[in-house]
Amino acid sequence: MNIRAQKTYEALFALEDLREILRATAPVHELNDEQQERFNKILKSLRGTLDEIEKGRGESKIRYIADKIELRSKEEEYINLNPIQSGGRLTAEARKALIAYGDGYSVCDYCFKPFRLDHIKRPPIQEFHSELAEFVNMEAVRVVRGARRGFQIVANALLDKGDIALIAEVGHYSLGLAIEASRAEWREIPLNENRIVTPEKTQEKIEMVKKETRKLPKLIAVPHIDYMYGNEHDVKGIAKIAHEYDIPFLYNGAYTVGIMPVDGKKIGADFIIGSAHKSMASPAPTGVLATTEEFMGRIFKTTRSKGDVSGRKFGIKEVYLLGCTVMGAPLIAMMASFPRVKERVKNWDEEVKKSNYFIREFLRIEGNSIVSEMPRKHTMTKVDSTGSFDKVAQTHKKKGYFLHNELSKRKITGIIPGATKQYKLNTYGLSWDQIKYLENAFREIAESYKIGVR
Amino acid sequence: MNIRAQKTYEALFALEDLREILRATAPVHELNDEQQERFNKILKSLRGTLDEIEKGRGESKIRYIADKIELRSKEEEYINLNPIQSGGRLTAEARKALIAYGDGYSVCDYCFKPFRLDHIKRPPIQEFHSELAEFVNMEAVRVVRGARRGFQIVANALLDKGDIALIAEVGHYSLGLAIEASRAEWREIPLNENRIVTPEKTQEKIEMVKKETRKLPKLIAVPHIDYMYGNEHDVKGIAKIAHEYDIPFLYNGAYTVGIMPVDGKKIGADFIIGSAHKSMASPAPTGVLATTEEFMGRIFKTTRSKGDVSGRKFGIKEVYLLGCTVMGAPLIAMMASFPRVKERVKNWDEEVKKSNYFIREFLRIEGNSIVSEMPRKHTMTKVDSTGSFDKVAQTHKKKGYFLHNELSKRKITGIIPGATKQYKLNTYGLSWDQIKYLENAFREIAESYKIGVR
Repeated sequence: MNIRAQKTYEALFALEDLREILRATAPVHELNDEQQERFNKILKSLRGTLDEIEKGRGESKIRYIADKIELRSKEEEYINLNPIQSGGRLTAEARKALIAYGDGYSVCDYCFKPFRLDHIKRPPIQEFHSELAEFVNMEAVRVVRGARRGFQIVANALLDKGDIALIAEVGHYSLGLAIEASRAEWREIPLNENRIVTPEKTQEKIEMVKKETRKLPKLIAVPHIDYMYGNEHDVKGIAKIAHEYDIPFLYNGAYTVGIMPVDGKKIGADFIIGSAHKSMASPAPTGVLATTEEFMGRIFKTTRSKGDVSGRKFGIKEVYLLGCTVMGAPLIAMMASFPRVKERVKNWDEEVKKSNYFIREFLRIEGNSIVSEMPRKHTMTKVDSTGSFDKVAQTHKKKGYFLHNELSKRKITGIIPGATKQYKLNTYGLSWDQIKYLENAFREIAESYKIGVR
Repeated sequence: MNIRAQKTYEALFALEDLREILRATAPVHELNDEQQERFNKILKSLRGTLDEIEKGRGESKIRYIADKIELRSKEEEYINLNPIQSGGRLTAEARKALIAYGDGYSVCDYCFKPFRLDHIKRPPIQEFHSELAEFVNMEAVRVVRGARRGFQIVANALLDKGDIALIAEVGHYSLGLAIEASRAEWREIPLNENRIVTPEKTQEKIEMVKKETRKLPKLIAVPHIDYMYGNEHDVKGIAKIAHEYDIPFLYNGAYTVGIMPVDGKKIGADFIIGSAHKSMASPAPTGVLATTEEFMGRIFKTTRSKGDVSGRKFGIKEVYLLGCTVMGAPLIAMMASFPRVKERVKNWDEEVKKSNYFIREFLRIEGNSIVSEMPRKHTMTKVDSTGSFDKVAQTHKKKGYFLHNELSKRKITGIIPGATKQYKLNTYGLSWDQIKYLENAFREIAESYKIGVR
């Protein structure tokens, strides 16, 4: 590991050991001899570690956190192209929030009546919910335990046994599972010849389901940007068609909410679902479920049950959400990242520009092509190097892993090891310097294997 | 805030700022002038902060992490009696794991075929799952997004519209919601005169439901220790009765798994559910769902759906779990705490001893009584001070808040502010020194208000 990254970890961990002494001796903090000695030793070693950080020299002291859990330095040491990881990389504020609020129910210190997470004022969870609603321009919003839980909450509320929901041919598996868990069925809206879900294809599919089953689908759910190609689908047009049939429309914003501007009203969505660990610089499992005034009563339905013995009621608790959702560290980190997230969506054009720039350079390598739509409208792209790197793989003793090794040597990570035909990569959040480093690395690898570069 | 706690935070945060520079300059780490200057400044100020930690003197520089998110120091400064927080307090290892694995999908770096969280070998998530199964002595286990998601997964798999499930009169609301979300109904098994759920009461209720509805309940779910009184219920006897009627039994171990030994086989449970943020020194939202060979196929059912257009199958993904569950920071923290959690359950007798010791001392204050069963079998206890502190509250200008203020002054927190009649407190994890400090503080407060102390 890069020695500065290594030593930064060592210093952070030493401070956690120090903190543990404070915890064990609260509230008086009278340290016994053993504790005092340990305290002094940690401080002394910390000073040494700072010197090592400054010099950029030293010996690694820590490799594991506990048992076999290694340190992780993908973000400190590498350019990480992992298609699902870049939008969920934490901000420094989120990392600080995790340090301060890691403990179990940490955000519940000031949970007073009516005892529900989204009503807590300190830390400002209630305010965060209002801001989130504004951010996606919807009337009501809840933080949920991941986008898939958002899908499930909507499916649970709207679908009954035997109902049909439409998803895209490139819909995420977890959406399919959420529908299946509600005892309903999912059918796919086919892509058009450009691998795009269109209002026309949607209408055709609605009509087909209607003809076949004599009933209409109960829900239509389409990703704005899909996970398979990173293509943009005509969600606004689809929402319009859905509404012509009076079918609710779910906008899957796993790859959009938090990295590009999303306006629920403009789209005409009934539900906006975002993934915070995918696109809002947050730890898993976090997500956003937003809806309109029309649907909030159904989706965020509160319980009307009453204990037949106790007479208890849990009136304020929302059935499909199972009450409070993300009541600790991941929520507070999401909140801490939010000011920067609100800012960063404004730079989306620049991100797309970097994406297109890199792709253009990638295409200079002879035999490379792009599977995703062009020009790119997103930073996540499916590329094809069957005619370049895969040719090398055919005769290389490491097979497809040669590319992974060459990239690793150059401190680039995130492309699936062994893949040389088609694979996905995401340039989100890289600086221009990093983009240029990346472009250069690919060219260098190509040249070193005598692949032509235009 | 205690200055050492404050300064420890400042040092931790400075290191995160340093780390951010490493991230922005990866992989080459050639700092530009501005970055180099910032780097040096952070290092310099860090050295000053270490001096301040050593001396225990200095001025607070940071109050907020971002926006209005304050630093949190409940565990560094206070004795925290919060009934739901003590078992979820992180270990130092868990805090380190959060530092290293905070980013979104951090545990997915080495996710290879068959692409499912519980199969990941690096970090050792697969091994952790095996160890967890052994820990609760069950055949199959999954980490889930909180105990309530565990309840929901079981309810979703076993219950259909109109089915009836039995819960305890002191069952948790989220269990009720999980049943309701499955379109089923919950009924309560009454407590006996000692506020205990017994096999007899369970059998009576089964018979009552049978008589009324002409069908048997489809599920019986009882907490080993309930959230309301911290009383122990006869789960083994109830499991036996349930099985006589061929009804599956769900053991709710939110207050047991991770703090006391739990043996699923000995209990005869079909499902063991634990809350990691409540009792396994983990961040929310985390939990454990364990089951037997008999039920694993139903509960962890994999999908058999197939895309009608694409022909896609998601064969390995588990329907009711919605595929991967806790794919980031909270899981890794849970894993990092686990070695200590396995050890700490062996000290349960000592924890109960401390609990009983404190309660005995608390009872020396005239007018105090205990609502929970006695002697205590758990560290979470409902106490009553209607005859002592509440009498003071009647004429105190701060009303019931006087007790909260007196405790706060003595750096004790976690009792609901304003409460002087009945309230809950949890002594889990406190050292004998802290227990004695606590006992002393209560006595001091009583004496200062002229309440008799025996």
